[in-house]
Amino acid sequence: MIKVDENKAAHLLLEHDDILILSHAHPDGDTLGCGFGLLRTLLKIGKRAQLLCSDVIPKKFDYMSEGLKAPVVSDPAFIVSVDVADIKLLGSHFETEYKDKINLAIDHHGSNKMQADYLLLDAAAAATCEILFNIINNMQVSIDEKIADCLFTGLSTDTGCFRYYNVTARTHKIAAEMLEKGARAGFINQLMFETKTATYVALEKLAMDTMERYFDDRCEMIAVTQEMFEISGSDESECDPLAPKTKQVEGVLIGVVLREKEDGSFKVSVRTNDPMNAAEICGLLGGGGHKNAAGCQLDGPLEEAKTTILKVIGEYIDDRADLLRQAE
Amino acid sequence: MIKVDENKAAHLLLEHDDILILSHAHPDGDTLGCGFGLLRTLLKIGKRAQLLCSDVIPKKFDYMSEGLKAPVVSDPAFIVSVDVADIKLLGSHFETEYKDKINLAIDHHGSNKMQADYLLLDAAAAATCEILFNIINNMQVSIDEKIADCLFTGLSTDTGCFRYYNVTARTHKIAAEMLEKGARAGFINQLMFETKTATYVALEKLAMDTMERYFDDRCEMIAVTQEMFEISGSDESECDPLAPKTKQVEGVLIGVVLREKEDGSFKVSVRTNDPMNAAEICGLLGGGGHKNAAGCQLDGPLEEAKTTILKVIGEYIDDRADLLRQAE
Repeated sequence: MIKVDENKAAHLLLEHDDILILSHAHPDGDTLGCGFGLLRTLLKIGKRAQLLCSDVIPKKFDYMSEGLKAPVVSDPAFIVSVDVADIKLLGSHFETEYKDKINLAIDHHGSNKMQADYLLLDAAAAATCEILFNIINNMQVSIDEKIADCLFTGLSTDTGCFRYYNVTARTHKIAAEMLEKGARAGFINQLMFETKTATYVALEKLAMDTMERYFDDRCEMIAVTQEMFEISGSDESECDPLAPKTKQVEGVLIGVVLREKEDGSFKVSVRTNDPMNAAEICGLLGGGGHKNAAGCQLDGPLEEAKTTILKVIGEYIDDRADLLRQAE
Repeated sequence: MIKVDENKAAHLLLEHDDILILSHAHPDGDTLGCGFGLLRTLLKIGKRAQLLCSDVIPKKFDYMSEGLKAPVVSDPAFIVSVDVADIKLLGSHFETEYKDKINLAIDHHGSNKMQADYLLLDAAAAATCEILFNIINNMQVSIDEKIADCLFTGLSTDTGCFRYYNVTARTHKIAAEMLEKGARAGFINQLMFETKTATYVALEKLAMDTMERYFDDRCEMIAVTQEMFEISGSDESECDPLAPKTKQVEGVLIGVVLREKEDGSFKVSVRTNDPMNAAEICGLLGGGGHKNAAGCQLDGPLEEAKTTILKVIGEYIDDRADLLRQAE
């Protein structure tokens, strides 16, 4: 695997045709912003390219594919993954199909484990769309309003709308340029952050009713069960906004969401405030992620999953008693 | 009254000493960001200056005055108001004291009604801090990390953390520069947007349990009673974040919060999505405000207040059936 910069990545893309772009499963604004942004860039310069995602793309992202007529690339000559930190995250079917076939991986996750011919990794980028912005500039393709919508979406969604610690001056500078290129920032932000489905609101209410606090209120935990999906009419795809809520209460340093999967196991999302480190906590359970947002998997039933994660968090907090005393 | 630009405002400030800065009552991040930002700028170049607000400044803004040693300006030679759209908004005591005494008013509210010797009004600025940024540059004072914290606070809080339609490329560009100057963006955003008190969370839960929908789910209503304040330990000062929540659900065009006051009457907050107009609805009940956010007062008890506002909203919706059909 060869590590490359934006200029090399740009040349690799320019040199190839029949390009297949892969986003990660459970697609979010950054993987799709990159996917559609790169797709539109490639189509604009006359290449055949296609974007694939192993999951259905949520309707709220429809504006990124508006008016897009992309060919089917059945025999790709070059395969690019965007915002995919691990081949597993392509989704089960894709994981097998594209294993050892990724030519270029573009990503901003420090924990990236992708095997690819070429890797462009910039963990200082708040969103993979920041990296793609530099690639497109290196390709010397001018960013139109449609591409600007895509890139802005990645910047905005991966930073909680420019709210998190990952935002740098570069993030704001690129956002400014996307607005100048015609990105519909207000419309996109309203859609991403100010619009909730009735089923999500019902699910949130059920989930918040399960809230429990531990370790002198430093840890807050909520659970989402399959039964709640049934009652609310919601599903897994709507769970993402729950995790940040668990760490918003004053004094809470670690927020946990236990999300029951169909097979009865649990997807665990951990969110932390400094000095607690979500990636370290999830790492102890075989997972990973970022400093303030990470995840892992646990076996059910619920009470067992709770016991497991609480034991790990309890020990983690004890080990960092000095750090906590300094911070408080 | 003379309308001035940033350059003239800069010269007026440079020409004077013993400068008194006034923020509006119920101070928010923009009026305080401007106030402390300008105060720090003036102190930096050796002037005597003081910031006054008729209300107590909430503790969460303490970081802006950290380490600040400002003199008392008992006999001001030049009085500047920042982010104050109307002399009434200085607060009752200040309203009388400073009537006809404002030398320079700096503001971004299109509805500005201030009487001052000089007015610097830029309604295209997302925050008054955007205007102050240009003034400081015109004064040729270099922005240090403390001033950057103040200006960033105004940008961030007046835009819902860069979320609203008022954000322009200029807003993001100035934000980028503030980060480069050392503004603690992540810390400030966390404090302003990601920190909730335990009492607020308890109140929100009680309030959301009262949620009712009307008129084919186009209207959502929640109620906050004095009893809920008692149970949650919260109070009126924490109610502001509830109103926007009522219009976030897909399809909801009108959100209503009925907030019981100590005398048993109700403060009504109406929030709307286009094409519904909150100011028109509240106007029918003797209130007013902006297009998407307005308020009015209603007598209790709760059931009577509900009946009154629902009757008005029902008729309002019926009258605009054509408009709604176009929008949906």
